[in-house]
Amino acid sequence: MPSADSALLTDLYQIAMLQAYHDHGMNDIAAFEFFVRKMPRTRNFLLAGGLEQVVEFLETLRFKDDELRWLAGCGTFRDDFVLSLADLRFTGDVYAMPEGTVFFPDEPILRIVAPIREAQLVETRVINLLQFQTMIASKAARVALAAPGKLLVDFGLRRAHGAEAGLLSARAGFVGGLTGTATVLAGKYWGIPLFGTMAHSYIQAHSSELEAFQHFARSLPDHCTFLIDTYDTEACAASLIPLVWQLASEGITVRGVRLDSGDLAQHARRVRSVLDEAGLRDMTIFASGNLDELKVRELAASAPIDGFGVGTSLCTSADAPSLDCAYKLQEYAGIPRRKRSEGKATWPGAKQVYRQRDGGDRFCSDLIATADEPQPGNPLLIPIMRGGRRAAPLPALGAIRDHAASQIAALPSPLRGLEPEASYPVRISDRLRDLADAMDAGEAVR
Amino acid sequence: MPSADSALLTDLYQIAMLQAYHDHGMNDIAAFEFFVRKMPRTRNFLLAGGLEQVVEFLETLRFKDDELRWLAGCGTFRDDFVLSLADLRFTGDVYAMPEGTVFFPDEPILRIVAPIREAQLVETRVINLLQFQTMIASKAARVALAAPGKLLVDFGLRRAHGAEAGLLSARAGFVGGLTGTATVLAGKYWGIPLFGTMAHSYIQAHSSELEAFQHFARSLPDHCTFLIDTYDTEACAASLIPLVWQLASEGITVRGVRLDSGDLAQHARRVRSVLDEAGLRDMTIFASGNLDELKVRELAASAPIDGFGVGTSLCTSADAPSLDCAYKLQEYAGIPRRKRSEGKATWPGAKQVYRQRDGGDRFCSDLIATADEPQPGNPLLIPIMRGGRRAAPLPALGAIRDHAASQIAALPSPLRGLEPEASYPVRISDRLRDLADAMDAGEAVR
Repeated sequence: MPSADSALLTDLYQIAMLQAYHDHGMNDIAAFEFFVRKMPRTRNFLLAGGLEQVVEFLETLRFKDDELRWLAGCGTFRDDFVLSLADLRFTGDVYAMPEGTVFFPDEPILRIVAPIREAQLVETRVINLLQFQTMIASKAARVALAAPGKLLVDFGLRRAHGAEAGLLSARAGFVGGLTGTATVLAGKYWGIPLFGTMAHSYIQAHSSELEAFQHFARSLPDHCTFLIDTYDTEACAASLIPLVWQLASEGITVRGVRLDSGDLAQHARRVRSVLDEAGLRDMTIFASGNLDELKVRELAASAPIDGFGVGTSLCTSADAPSLDCAYKLQEYAGIPRRKRSEGKATWPGAKQVYRQRDGGDRFCSDLIATADEPQPGNPLLIPIMRGGRRAAPLPALGAIRDHAASQIAALPSPLRGLEPEASYPVRISDRLRDLADAMDAGEAVR
Repeated sequence: MPSADSALLTDLYQIAMLQAYHDHGMNDIAAFEFFVRKMPRTRNFLLAGGLEQVVEFLETLRFKDDELRWLAGCGTFRDDFVLSLADLRFTGDVYAMPEGTVFFPDEPILRIVAPIREAQLVETRVINLLQFQTMIASKAARVALAAPGKLLVDFGLRRAHGAEAGLLSARAGFVGGLTGTATVLAGKYWGIPLFGTMAHSYIQAHSSELEAFQHFARSLPDHCTFLIDTYDTEACAASLIPLVWQLASEGITVRGVRLDSGDLAQHARRVRSVLDEAGLRDMTIFASGNLDELKVRELAASAPIDGFGVGTSLCTSADAPSLDCAYKLQEYAGIPRRKRSEGKATWPGAKQVYRQRDGGDRFCSDLIATADEPQPGNPLLIPIMRGGRRAAPLPALGAIRDHAASQIAALPSPLRGLEPEASYPVRISDRLRDLADAMDAGEAVR
């Protein structure tokens, strides 16, 4: 499999445009911005995600020798241009909303200001990284809002779109409010808490469920959650009671059971009463199996379930598996630019977003302004990189998660519900509107 | 970013189960099968994809020293078990349908027969790899069926779910029948034909569209497709005519134009007549912008468009962004196993799929049988690995693509349409049905 850190992880046209810029000596400073055009119908807010990976990508961007040789030999590019790529590094500035910040359509969450060849080349991967984690963190936030206080675990790796999607889902899911993940590598790399039980295959490989549980308990005494739906859920729940007491006498605490099929609410109620009647009130019930935030909300409200594994729907953002987002040139050589394609017009120039809070410290409206006009409220885009290097250390993942939680807590209450709500007010500053009008009237560069 | 080739790219429970197997000396031969449970509503058939990446994964599976150290230190696993992982390699056999083979729900497309610790550990990544490319190849096949003979290019990298999804989309898209991709690294690594034009930012960075085109044409004379919708599509089409003739006089052929916004059919018709009236009948029109197979079909039938860029909808399989698929234990220590969870029961034992053709060589029905009962028709699962090594070289990507095309051509015609059709007949052999009944009756291992 090709390595994801290749500078060739981009669209062909990026490199073609670079050759045209190279040939005509164009490399003035460009400002590109990443923003979401439209809120998915089933989201009331978005959480910015993926910035750390963008910074890592920009810091390490370079063409390797074999990549340059391949470019020179592929028939599309000239040698003198390919040679010029050997020295290409990202030397620009980056401004962005910190990861975990709540944002809305049209608001830039990242601005790259760099010589145009650098800023253009990175477009594809920047979108690729920002879209995905933003999408997953925003989905995870809904899962967390659906079941406050419950154990919520990302089970998505197997149905994520490849390895990177699985890993970044675990990260973005944690940012959005999940408790942890089943993906071991995400635990090792980012320190995300790991959870896991056992598979049906493990049960099936044994001559009985009880034998399987017994083996597991003696082997992993601190991790005993038994999967009880392989054959008959309630029968299994009843039959494991003596084993649980037996293990307790050996000093092994069985934490709980997992349900993964059928009517989860009904099974949970029945299993709960079997456990309670046996005096096992501390044993928890964990549920999984095609859950999304709506099912989690319903189950959390109606059934004695203590935790949920959420997989496919989270890691693919199944109800909105992409964001209508873009990375657009807003300024070049000091002159604002505006794309005016039908239905895709952009607000021109480098921009800043200001957020106003009401007396109770709740967010009440945002203002998109030109980057250099002072406005009330805090600017949401802050310096992240200067001259190709980090302007300051990026926050740790736990701090990002806390930031996301406090951002969500500051949202107007209706936006924290799962049903579609009237959109949050985002205004455009007079100066920005005037600039767009002037450009449309041909008073600025076309 | 963590590396995708880590043995820790798995769920925590896989490693937990391995410790239990280790402690109890369980490592008999297991047969696991991967299959899709249910056809997505908007698919009439599926194309098997991802086998090559599964084989690469299995061949190179091993725990690295730092991974073993981390496992030993993470608090969940015992040292003696972690030590045992140092020598773990995949030593098993793999049977599979070749990539590009058409298949249907319940049909295993891959069987892994190996000591259970190996076969269990690989579950997560095997599903992750097979699901994604199967899903994308199957989606791409629909795009290709929507517009036979048109140039069809994968534009999906930026909105794919991470790097690997973008790369594997390019590969699976090509298998499913697309002409090529914009993703450079996929071109370099797999030899997939590369296509690309220019971005709006490139146009906007210039003082005029004509200047931008002129620069591009002189810099990349063999790759001239001009993007004409940045400001006003028809005005741009009219204004570029003299430039096209001028470039022709310099020996530069402008191949065509790209439209990326608005009513693509209407713009294409207008632009076509502008070009035709100017005597530029050979110039092509390429369209992109939120296209899926249904829009492609409509545009191909109603507008003079020669090629299409398909991005988000393809690389996320937007209408069906996951497959209901599983990798299940079907046999252990020589005894068939059957999961009977509600709604998730499986056909037990190692299985084979036979396909019958009618007199005209069209597929007419499939039969799922136990692995060792002879049946009419060709067995679709063939040996891929033996004892952890390739049983034979895997086919090249072009051959896989040809195989997919001939498979699709052999489908009953209604299944090649884009509308949902009555499903293809897949039967279960008597012997397999008897085995399942016997197991349910408690005559086999529980």
